[in-house]
Order: sequence, then structure tokens, then C-alpha cells
Amino acid sequence: MKRIDFQTSPDKYRHWRIETDGEVARVIMDVDETAGLFEGYELKLNSYDLGVDIELADVIQRLRFEHPEVKTVVMASGKDRVFCAGANIRMLGGVSHAHKVNFCKFTNETRNSIEDATDNSHQTWICAVSGACAGGGYELALACDEIILTDDGSSTVALPEVPLLAVLPGTGGLTRVTDKRKVRRDRADIFCSLEEGIRGKKAVDWRLVDQVAPASKFGEAVDQRAKEVAARSDRPSGAQGVRLNPLDKTLTDNAIRYSMVSVEIDRDARIATVTISGPEDQPPADMAAAEAQGDQFWSLKLARELDDALLEIRFNEMEMAVIQFKSAGDPAAVLAYDEFMQANDGHWLMREILLYWRRVLKRVDLTSRTISTMAEPGSCFAGTLAELLFAADRTYMADGQFEGDNRPEARIALSQLNFGAYPMSNGLTRLETRFLGEPEAVEAAKATIGEQLDASQAEEMGLVSFAFDDIDWEDEVRIFLEERASFSPDALTAMEANLRFAGPETMETRIFGRLTAWQNWVFQRPNAVGADGALKRYGTGKRANFNMERV
Amino acid sequence: MKRIDFQTSPDKYRHWRIETDGEVARVIMDVDETAGLFEGYELKLNSYDLGVDIELADVIQRLRFEHPEVKTVVMASGKDRVFCAGANIRMLGGVSHAHKVNFCKFTNETRNSIEDATDNSHQTWICAVSGACAGGGYELALACDEIILTDDGSSTVALPEVPLLAVLPGTGGLTRVTDKRKVRRDRADIFCSLEEGIRGKKAVDWRLVDQVAPASKFGEAVDQRAKEVAARSDRPSGAQGVRLNPLDKTLTDNAIRYSMVSVEIDRDARIATVTISGPEDQPPADMAAAEAQGDQFWSLKLARELDDALLEIRFNEMEMAVIQFKSAGDPAAVLAYDEFMQANDGHWLMREILLYWRRVLKRVDLTSRTISTMAEPGSCFAGTLAELLFAADRTYMADGQFEGDNRPEARIALSQLNFGAYPMSNGLTRLETRFLGEPEAVEAAKATIGEQLDASQAEEMGLVSFAFDDIDWEDEVRIFLEERASFSPDALTAMEANLRFAGPETMETRIFGRLTAWQNWVFQRPNAVGADGALKRYGTGKRANFNMERV
Repeated sequence: MKRIDFQTSPDKYRHWRIETDGEVARVIMDVDETAGLFEGYELKLNSYDLGVDIELADVIQRLRFEHPEVKTVVMASGKDRVFCAGANIRMLGGVSHAHKVNFCKFTNETRNSIEDATDNSHQTWICAVSGACAGGGYELALACDEIILTDDGSSTVALPEVPLLAVLPGTGGLTRVTDKRKVRRDRADIFCSLEEGIRGKKAVDWRLVDQVAPASKFGEAVDQRAKEVAARSDRPSGAQGVRLNPLDKTLTDNAIRYSMVSVEIDRDARIATVTISGPEDQPPADMAAAEAQGDQFWSLKLARELDDALLEIRFNEMEMAVIQFKSAGDPAAVLAYDEFMQANDGHWLMREILLYWRRVLKRVDLTSRTISTMAEPGSCFAGTLAELLFAADRTYMADGQFEGDNRPEARIALSQLNFGAYPMSNGLTRLETRFLGEPEAVEAAKATIGEQLDASQAEEMGLVSFAFDDIDWEDEVRIFLEERASFSPDALTAMEANLRFAGPETMETRIFGRLTAWQNWVFQRPNAVGADGALKRYGTGKRANFNMERV
Repeated sequence: MKRIDFQTSPDKYRHWRIETDGEVARVIMDVDETAGLFEGYELKLNSYDLGVDIELADVIQRLRFEHPEVKTVVMASGKDRVFCAGANIRMLGGVSHAHKVNFCKFTNETRNSIEDATDNSHQTWICAVSGACAGGGYELALACDEIILTDDGSSTVALPEVPLLAVLPGTGGLTRVTDKRKVRRDRADIFCSLEEGIRGKKAVDWRLVDQVAPASKFGEAVDQRAKEVAARSDRPSGAQGVRLNPLDKTLTDNAIRYSMVSVEIDRDARIATVTISGPEDQPPADMAAAEAQGDQFWSLKLARELDDALLEIRFNEMEMAVIQFKSAGDPAAVLAYDEFMQANDGHWLMREILLYWRRVLKRVDLTSRTISTMAEPGSCFAGTLAELLFAADRTYMADGQFEGDNRPEARIALSQLNFGAYPMSNGLTRLETRFLGEPEAVEAAKATIGEQLDASQAEEMGLVSFAFDDIDWEDEVRIFLEERASFSPDALTAMEANLRFAGPETMETRIFGRLTAWQNWVFQRPNAVGADGALKRYGTGKRANFNMERV
């Protein structure tokens, strides 16, 4: 399968348009059916594949950073009579299981980022639906804060996956129907069993949409609502956005190099080593200076590079068993940036950067590779970067100086940001999740904010899994990495998905835990993907042939 | 696959012994390795299959009903040097996917019933572990309230599924490690990657067990703890238990008939119709009279029959797409029983009966068939039986009298028991779950307790999905049933598992939603179940051959 590139920009979009007009932006989905990411299908009826979703993720990100003045985003279709037909079925029928799973995860993260923009950036997405809005199309609408449907006798919302395709509305659909829109359970059952969808007032009564408006007044109703919603936002009107320029990125056969991040691919050992560079300078003097740095502000630049690196590994390096995080730099310099971010967290730009880090760290949590963090001599896992210690399945810390190594002894440190800025999908911080059974350990950790902790202190406090000196380090790490690479990748994926999210469940954990796991199961079953299965037979005129055992 | 019988009794046990001694009972696992449920494997090292678990479920049930005086149950092994090696691997390698899934669900329900006995019957299970306690063996221990481990240098607890077998500790193991015992996340990762397990003080430090005691003092430590735990129970010391006699049950080719329940199997239409008979008499005058009725008390008798019917359909009628609940009787008579149960809910026996209904209704929620409830003329879906209206994916109610049908018009009614006695796995009542978006509807329903509601009232209040008169009834029901039978069974299983449990998540919903879905996925993957997969290669001396793509 060809290498997938997650970097794009509006001048390259094939499927979306952004039209900004003061406080309100319109995001128009107008899929180019000839521009699918892979061969073998046409993106008819505004159906989508990963390429369409990569552009959407870019749209969401740019509106947040480049358009502080935009308070409401209206999503609409650029086609007549169809809003969006959902994920492209021929694409789903043709790609590998691994791609389907990765595709669904990325689209889910993108839907969640729409909700994050609404809830936390106060850039509220509303969905203006005219025409058929089915499956993944309705799931796009569900991710928006409000859905306004044209009442024209033909525009409908639908989740026809089960009756038509023998798969689930797996991009959050089932979960948002029950838990976001709180549709009555028997109505949810009826709705999800209907090929043809629901329209008009009934869609409102059943809580599937918020409002209907006749075609003649639809534009007006949407505009009015967009203005009302904009009025409650705290986004600044006169601020200048930060332009997200192309990443500084070089690909070689076994490496991806960015300015602050490098990824080394060891295909034999099946390890991707991601090394992060700490800041080389002090944080800017004030927010004006930070705004002037724009996308070169250390923390933003690093977040963008790390985010891209994670997606590269997920999609383009499928056989990597382990992601091994390393870092190089001065812990004090990272803490200084954390303090600057914390001190300015009321500023729209700093809020965006903190929220972006939150999403990137969630992307780490949701990456189905073993995550290990290696705090070696000379590393700088402090504050925001210390989250990578707690996001890891295991963390190894070097104890003392290593012979023949002139880098300083490894130290880790916490900042205020470790105690609330970066909640996981379960709504808890990584430290709260880690210490679910010993909440007093969170308090003890908090008492050390700003201190540089050595390996024995860190181990004692439960902040790392192991501390080894240079006699044991190499063997212990090697054994772990070899062992991990020898286990069944499937069992590890499933085990980690269960162990990483202790504690409360949220709509997000339900989507990634329950809904995704069931969808992945369905994506393996012959009734969906077999030669006579529904995905393969879709559009051939032949009915799928099902094994009728209920499992 | 041969028909599986869920009815047993101590005189028939092959694998367990119950030894009662006043307040404390000992439950000894001593698996007969020659007595597997199917051919082709031996139940070595106290490993188990469904047959072993059917006996355990019976043990738990009988201790609750037949032994009100038992306050602590100590689970122990009857073998030297092994507590329990978990589910039998050769069995898992040999049976169908459908059986594996059903087996895991039943064993999970059985583990949950141990916790239910502890938490709600105050018959507390503690686990006395000597020898190897691995995989499903440790999951048995995890279901107990406390785990006491022999500190003899060799007794260990372990979850070696991932490294040894490429499957998950799927009988609640991963979930109970993170959410019941709250083991630190990196330690959980290490523990679940170890073939050899953890012993002694480290097992206590890591929260994997509660206590260790040296071999010489182990029996004494367990006895002492059993007595301490017994002292806090409110179970009566002088009460007489209720003997659970064999069910009155007749099997024919297309039917299962009990005294109050009949199951008609329509193999062409793929519908199992379960008809419940309401009580023919008034409830007994007082608890003494109810105790005298024993297992013939209407409500207990019905719960036992319905429970068995559900298991029969799950395991022995795999192709049934729909379970259709019907009932016949007088709603007022059901309400009278509910009032009697409610009035006496402080009595140990009535508490047991109410808790048993709670479990049976949860078994309905967790049954992976479309559940539909048909409130026809002459039906009695009132109070406890009305839960079947709300447990259903859809409910159809007949509106008015039907031509040529002299049965009374359908009425439904609510009792106090619909508002708290029967929480679902998510911790909410079925009405609260149903009306998550309109909590005021629960209050409105509560205001009608005791009233008999006709179809238009019931529909108006949102208590049923549809009300049809006799002109439309037959066609509407037929179309629904035909449609349901035509859909992919897998997609329906997954859809229903997502739609049924809106609202909060609990350890139970995590086990059945997240853990089970991932385990089912793993159970489809070639790395576990393929010809070169770990389950197939286990014990052959050959290593499994894994596809190394991480998905």
C-alpha cells in the first residue's frame, strides 16, 4: 500500500472549501469523485476515504489556529441533493483489515476534534443538512454541536450500515445516538435498522436533529443560528491567526527527520524510536513575542511534528511493534516553557497549543503499538514531555551516570501542566489514572513540581516502572523489546486497549473501547467481508449470503 | 455440537464439592480431568470447560438459596500444587467461535454472580490460593472479595494469556486488574506479559492479592479471615434454606416446556417465542407461607425457568435471530406478587428472589439475539414482567380488542419494583436508561404505579415502541420479524451490544462491552486461532507463527 501523507493545506484540497466571513466560517464538503486516495473506486455522492478525512482534519486545525476570529463553523455540502453518503463502500470492501481499523480510528479522532473545537476552543460547529445524510455522513453531523435539517420532504438522516452493509455505524454513530443525543433505545434500534432514514419533524421528535427549516428559509435559519451561537463565544475578534506552514520534514528509507523530532525505524527489531529535542532557548518574553514566533514557537512546532510522526508510524510502518520515546535536552528548559504556557493559558493561542498537546497525547494513548519511554542520561522528560512517561505502557529510567557517557544523569520533573491540562479520553489525568488505587501518590507527586527527580526518587514515587544502572540497563531494555516484538500483535493491541483506560468511561472511551472493538470484530466476520459478504456484494445486485448463527 | 444441559445438582457434580460448617462454607474445585463436556481434551491441572462452570454457577446459586446461614464462602483447590490453570486450552482451540463467545459470556456472568452474592446477599466469597493460579484461575480469584495467597515460594498468581496463548484474560481479568484491584497501569502491563506470574509479598505490594500467609499458617489465616468476614454479614443464622429441586421441563424437537414458561422454536422463521404464564393464585398470606412454598413460589419458579430457557436458546438454538416474549395472565395478579415481594424485601429469601430476577433480567440484556416483546391481548406485562418491555430492543403492543379474540385487551402496568429493584449492568434502571434524554418521563411513569395502561397511553408515555390495532398488527409484526431474520447476525449482535447500554459504564459493562468485544476480535484473528496460531500450536512444542502487522 502506498505511503500516506498527512500534510496538506487549502491550496491542495480536492474535497473541501473554507469560506470565512467574519465570525462565521462555512466548510463545504464537495468531494472530487476522481480523487480517491487509492485506485479502484470513485468517491460518488460525497462519500469519503482517508484522503478526504485528512483534508477535514487539516480544515479543523487551521480554523482553530489561523482564524481566531471564527466563532461558528457551519458544515454543509457543495452537492445538490446529497449531504454525504458516508465512507466509500468500495474502498472499505477493497482495503486491508489493518487499513480499515486505522482509517476508522483516524476518522474518529477527527470527529472528536470537532467536538474539542466546539467545547474547548469555543469555535462551535453546526451542521446544515440538505439532501441525503447517511452513515458516515450523519456521523459527521453527530460530531457537530447542532444539526439543522432541511424540511423539504426528501432530506433525511440515516444510519443504514446494519441493514445495507452488515457493518456498524462505527465512527461514533451508535455511541453518539445513545449518549450524546440520548435517543430512546427502541427508537435508536428502529433508526439504525432503517435503510431509508428519517426526515422532517419526526427527526426532531426523535432527537436525531435539533431543528428543521423549510427549504425556502433554510439558509436564513442556519445564518441566524450561526450568529446566535457565535455570540456566546469568547474567541477574540481582532486577533491575528498563526499560519501553519509546511513541516520541516525529510524522509529516508529508515528515518523521518523533523526539526525537533526524529523517527528511526529498525525493521528487524520492529522498533520505531522517536527522539524529541528539548528547547534550545528560553521561552519568549511575552505573548506578543510568542505570537511573532507563530508556528516556530517550540511547543507548537514539536506538537505538530510529533503528531505527524505518530500518524506516519500508524499508517506507513505497520510492522513496528514498539514505539520507543527518547528525548534530549535540558529538563529545566522544558519546565520554563511549561511555566510560560501555564502563565498565559487564558490567551487564545496558548489555549490552542495546550489543547493541541492534549489531542496529540490522546493520539499516543490510542496508538495500537506498545509505547515505551526511555529516560536515558541527557533526557528531558519534564512537564509536558513527562506525560510520555505516563502515557507509556512501561517506562525505563537510567539510574546514575553511565560509563563512558558524558551526558548528565537522567532526571525527570513535573510541572503544573501534569495535573489537569492534559486529561486522557477517560477524563482523568494520566497521573490520576496511573494512581487510581493510590490517590495519595498524585498528591505526593504534585508536591515535587519543579524539582528534578533522579531515578531512585522517581521509582520510589511510582513515576517510572524501572530504574536500572548502566550494568543492567542494556540487557533489561533489550529483553523487554525482544519479548514485546515476539508476542502476538493482536493480543497486545487488545490488552493495551484494556489496560490503558482504567477508571471512568466517557463518550470517547466508549467509542474507542466498545464501539471500535465491536466494529473491528465485524470487520473480520465473513458476513461483512467474506467473498459473499455484504461489503463485497454491495452494488453488484446480488444479496449477501449470511451465516445465520448468532454469536 | 451436542445439546448442553444447564441443570445440575450436588449429587451429580464431577468437579466441585461444597463443605458447609455453620457460617462458613468451603467450595472445593477438584476437576475430574476425564469428565470434559466434549471429546478431545482432558481437564488437567484443574482447568475448566463449560461443564465445570455450569456446576460452579449451580454452587453459587444453591449456597444463596439453600444456605441462608452461610456468610462466608472460601474457594479453594482440591489438588496439590495447583489452584486452577484456567480455561482448558485444547477445548478453546477446538470449539467453534460461537461456542467460545457463549462460553466466555456464561463464565463472566458466573463470576459476576460471585460478586453479586458478596455485595448484595452478604455471602462473601474469599479465595484461598495455594499452588499455581493462572489465567482463568486467577480470574476466579479476582471475582472473590479477597484473595489470600500461600507464601511458599512457589504459589503464584498469573495472567499469562497474552505471552502464552495470544488471547486475552477475557473473563474479567484485565478489567478487574485495572478497575477492581486498581493495579498501577505499568505494573498491570508487566503482570499481563509474564508467563510465570508473581508470588509472595510482591503480589501484595502490587495489589494482586490481599494477604499472604506462610504454608504452615495458611489454613489458620484463612479460617480467621473467614470468621471476621462472616461477622459483618446480616444473613440469618437460624433460617431454613429453600431447596432448589429439579425443574419441571420437557424437551421436544421444536419446543421446551416448563410449568410457567414455554419456548416454541420456529426454525424457518428463526424465531424463539418465549411465553410466560402469570400467577394463577394470589400471593401467600405471609413469608412463612412463602417459605413453605419454597421453590414453588411463583416468582422464584418463573425466574428459574426463564433463566434456563435463555441459556437453552443461547447455546442450543444458535440460529434463532429473535427472541419474542409473550405472556398470558392477569396483570393485577402479577402486581399483587410484586407488592408482596416489595413488602417483604427485608427477608433474606425475598431478597434472594429479587436479586435473582435482577440477574435473570441482566441475562436478557446480555443475550445476543434481537429481543422483542409482544404485548398481545390477554398478556400480563406488569411490574417485574414489564421489565421485559424495557429490556427489549422493540416492543409491540396490541391496541384494543382483536376481532374473533375473546382475550381481554392488552394492558401493561408498573410497580414500585420497576424503579430500583432491577438495575441493569450500567447501574441504572431500564426506565432510566430508556429515558436518558427525558428523565421527566421516568417520573411520569412512576406516577402511574398500579394503573393498568392501554396501548395508546403506553405509547404516549413512551413505554412501548408501537401500538397497532388488529388491522395492522399482523403485517407490522411479520415485517419486523422477517426483516430482523434477514440482517447479518454479526452486525445485529454488535449494534445491540452498543445500543442497549446507554449512560454510565461500570465494571460489568466494561467487561461485556470492551473486554468481550476485544476478546471476540482476537478469537477471530489467525494469530490466535489460525492453523499456525497460538491456540492451535499450544502444547505441540512448535511456536506460533504470527503476522506481525499491528492493527
